[in-house]
Amino acid sequence: VILLLEKLDTNRTIETKEYNAAMKRLQRELAALQLKVKELEIPILIVFEGWSAAGKGTAISRLVYSLDPRDFNVYTMGKVAPSCSNRPFLCAYAANAPSKGRMAIYDKSWHRISLPEGQKAWKLKPAEKKGFYHDVNAFEKQLADDGTLIIKFFLHISKDEQKRRFDELEKNEATKWRIVERDKIQNKNYGKYTKYFDRMLTQTNECPWHIVAADDSKFAALMIYETLIAEINAAITSTTSPDKQIEMARPTETTQNSILKNVDLDKTISNEEYNKKLQFLQSKLSNLCYKMYAKRTSVVIVYEGWDAAGKGGNIKRLTQELDPRGYEVVPISAPTDEELRHQYLWRFWNKLPKDGHLTIFDRSWYGRVLVERVEGFATESEWRRAYQEINDMELHLANHGVVIFKFWVHIDKSEQLARFESRKVNEWKQHKLTDDDWRNRDKWGDYEAAVNEMINKTNTAHAPWVIIESNNKKYARIKTLEIVTEQLERMLS
Amino acid sequence: VILLLEKLDTNRTIETKEYNAAMKRLQRELAALQLKVKELEIPILIVFEGWSAAGKGTAISRLVYSLDPRDFNVYTMGKVAPSCSNRPFLCAYAANAPSKGRMAIYDKSWHRISLPEGQKAWKLKPAEKKGFYHDVNAFEKQLADDGTLIIKFFLHISKDEQKRRFDELEKNEATKWRIVERDKIQNKNYGKYTKYFDRMLTQTNECPWHIVAADDSKFAALMIYETLIAEINAAITSTTSPDKQIEMARPTETTQNSILKNVDLDKTISNEEYNKKLQFLQSKLSNLCYKMYAKRTSVVIVYEGWDAAGKGGNIKRLTQELDPRGYEVVPISAPTDEELRHQYLWRFWNKLPKDGHLTIFDRSWYGRVLVERVEGFATESEWRRAYQEINDMELHLANHGVVIFKFWVHIDKSEQLARFESRKVNEWKQHKLTDDDWRNRDKWGDYEAAVNEMINKTNTAHAPWVIIESNNKKYARIKTLEIVTEQLERMLS
Repeated sequence: VILLLEKLDTNRTIETKEYNAAMKRLQRELAALQLKVKELEIPILIVFEGWSAAGKGTAISRLVYSLDPRDFNVYTMGKVAPSCSNRPFLCAYAANAPSKGRMAIYDKSWHRISLPEGQKAWKLKPAEKKGFYHDVNAFEKQLADDGTLIIKFFLHISKDEQKRRFDELEKNEATKWRIVERDKIQNKNYGKYTKYFDRMLTQTNECPWHIVAADDSKFAALMIYETLIAEINAAITSTTSPDKQIEMARPTETTQNSILKNVDLDKTISNEEYNKKLQFLQSKLSNLCYKMYAKRTSVVIVYEGWDAAGKGGNIKRLTQELDPRGYEVVPISAPTDEELRHQYLWRFWNKLPKDGHLTIFDRSWYGRVLVERVEGFATESEWRRAYQEINDMELHLANHGVVIFKFWVHIDKSEQLARFESRKVNEWKQHKLTDDDWRNRDKWGDYEAAVNEMINKTNTAHAPWVIIESNNKKYARIKTLEIVTEQLERMLS
Repeated sequence: VILLLEKLDTNRTIETKEYNAAMKRLQRELAALQLKVKELEIPILIVFEGWSAAGKGTAISRLVYSLDPRDFNVYTMGKVAPSCSNRPFLCAYAANAPSKGRMAIYDKSWHRISLPEGQKAWKLKPAEKKGFYHDVNAFEKQLADDGTLIIKFFLHISKDEQKRRFDELEKNEATKWRIVERDKIQNKNYGKYTKYFDRMLTQTNECPWHIVAADDSKFAALMIYETLIAEINAAITSTTSPDKQIEMARPTETTQNSILKNVDLDKTISNEEYNKKLQFLQSKLSNLCYKMYAKRTSVVIVYEGWDAAGKGGNIKRLTQELDPRGYEVVPISAPTDEELRHQYLWRFWNKLPKDGHLTIFDRSWYGRVLVERVEGFATESEWRRAYQEINDMELHLANHGVVIFKFWVHIDKSEQLARFESRKVNEWKQHKLTDDDWRNRDKWGDYEAAVNEMINKTNTAHAPWVIIESNNKKYARIKTLEIVTEQLERMLS
């Protein structure tokens, strides 16, 4: 689809009398639909984009007029707080995504980062610029696939109308401040900006835009209401239609490549070598972290692995000599009820490291394709979709310059049993052994298949998996430290 | 208690051999205690304050060495993000308070806002300066009363030692950047700063400070470990001692002053007057909100009231003409599981308006002394304590210049019944009527007593209650709008 703004008529009008009658009906209709949306727990994300002075504020005011103010949030996303702008750019927007049954209205959006001033303000890195449209489309697709209704409006006005509005705002002492240099540049270079917007709209149209002729604000308001009502009705139909409930029954692929089976778990290390290397590598990593901070490079380390594989001890050795102000360990357990009301990646967006920091995830978003898959907490189509979603998210981080490590901490079944038994009798370690551990153990085969498929499908160039042989914990710790320090040294030099 | 730093010896030392032996024992002890703390779900908040270059970073590194990195967070609170600094100053700190069983370590804290540079950086208002120590002590008391173990360390070094460390840091190219002008000023004016710190420590000593002689970092580390272990042991004892479990049985006060009984609910308004006033007041409030924004004044409006009293419709009329980018409505329902793991005011700190914004709470922190009291979700000592806690929090907001409105939307019991019945038969309103509503109705008398006591005890000069007679909803809406517009007009002129 190629959208060409210049071919669209901005000047469509409506009689006041006709407008009043239609608006009354539409407002009532929307208010009724809002109740339905709440009942069906559909999250709705509405984006308002457009020319400066195209009337985004007015359009939002008109739209919320008939809504219950307890059910929506308006986010002004033109400027983004510095605390957000030193992370990958989608973080700030993802954090405000609506939860089930709520409506989030974005006054300006991630799309405008594609404009020249947006790229400048966000200081996009080359890889981020290159990946921009892919990342945006992937992000919107994820939310839509999760059931979020996304409705995107672009308010379109002509060059003359924009000029007229600027003049009017400038005449008035009270509104004068609202016109800044950037706005005037837009009007002066209307033709060039038409091209910028055309590109923005065309490239991000997988989740389609609604272009609203906005020279007449009343006409625009009606069109927005009608579009919204039609979209919500369609979403309600698809949510409640019986087809939706039937999960496609697809046979689980048998992964030929049995990655875990080929792992050599007999690797060991002598105590002497361990102590020597540990000290050397810990101190090296500590220095690398200061360098990371100075270079504003951030690092994400994901730990996944069998119960009792030694993740905790491994993380402890990795962090022991680091400045505690520079890293954070995020333990991931069952999602909270608020987290369950959002797409499953929502809870991770906010926990990503700021530039220059290190974040270690003790279990992670891979829960979607491991425990949630095996235990049936996610439907088959949900976890199958997740491989691509996760790859997209990690690519987005990598484009921002985040260095990503993913470790599968591996032991075999008999080693696990030995460790469980020793936990049973060791007073200090009893708290570590739960009924869940034994239940998970019974499903060893299912988990093994899930791990193999996970590694196969998410082992990307920008975020590769490394298997840490951990039958010997000391060997595992040294290997992890070696990989992190070597890779960081390469990246930071 | 008057703390006088100059009388304290900063120069206490320990032999390396002795240190190593003691440290090994203490680290093991602390690691064991951490498991216990997690099991007992005790939240621990540790504050590190002190002179520049006193070794706060080193002390924190040593401290966390033996801890499981999944169970603590370190917050560097020297600089605060702009998104936090345009709210009352405690917001930023309260947001990071530890949840049950977790440990939050603050590298620098709210206390240093009392220093000259802190007051400047935070742009404290006169009332905030005046109320500073009271607010800090009240905040710490609230957390402590809720079961948080707060441990505050002040690292104390001599003038000469500080000078020596600055020189050493400056000599090294890699650490030179860490010394800024502010640090040097501190050393030059060591005597003056001793007085600043003395005042800070003395005035905030209700939750007591531990002053650590830190010329010798090893001696300091030992003292920190020993203090921490002693404090945690004491907290464990008091948590598990049977005395703790016995709730003091105190008779509920019978409030003489039956505030609600004296409300005249027969007030009405004609449709004509309603329509005229509504339009006038809504447009007036809309203009006042722009003025609020320009003056960076923020407003909090709390709605409490009986089920079916008309809160929703009232809020809708109040917000209908406002720019949706300037206000937010926060509906408060049962706390999420994450919220339940914190002190009950935690979830509100983050939702307070930024300077220049309006936030409307549809139900609020008063749930503590209403539904939680009546339904027994809070113990008697918890809800009795809450009156003072709430007054303290509201005072903190008022000191920052936040304008606070608190409305009790009132109807009588027969009016409520009529509204319930009409909801039952009205298809559009059926969703509004739940079993809870009927159950609450059965407890009308209990709620009435709770409301009377609440209004009596939290009707302060800085945040007064207003009863909105709402048997006639239109009358109620106009009254609310009138009060808000009149008061705001006064405050903003």
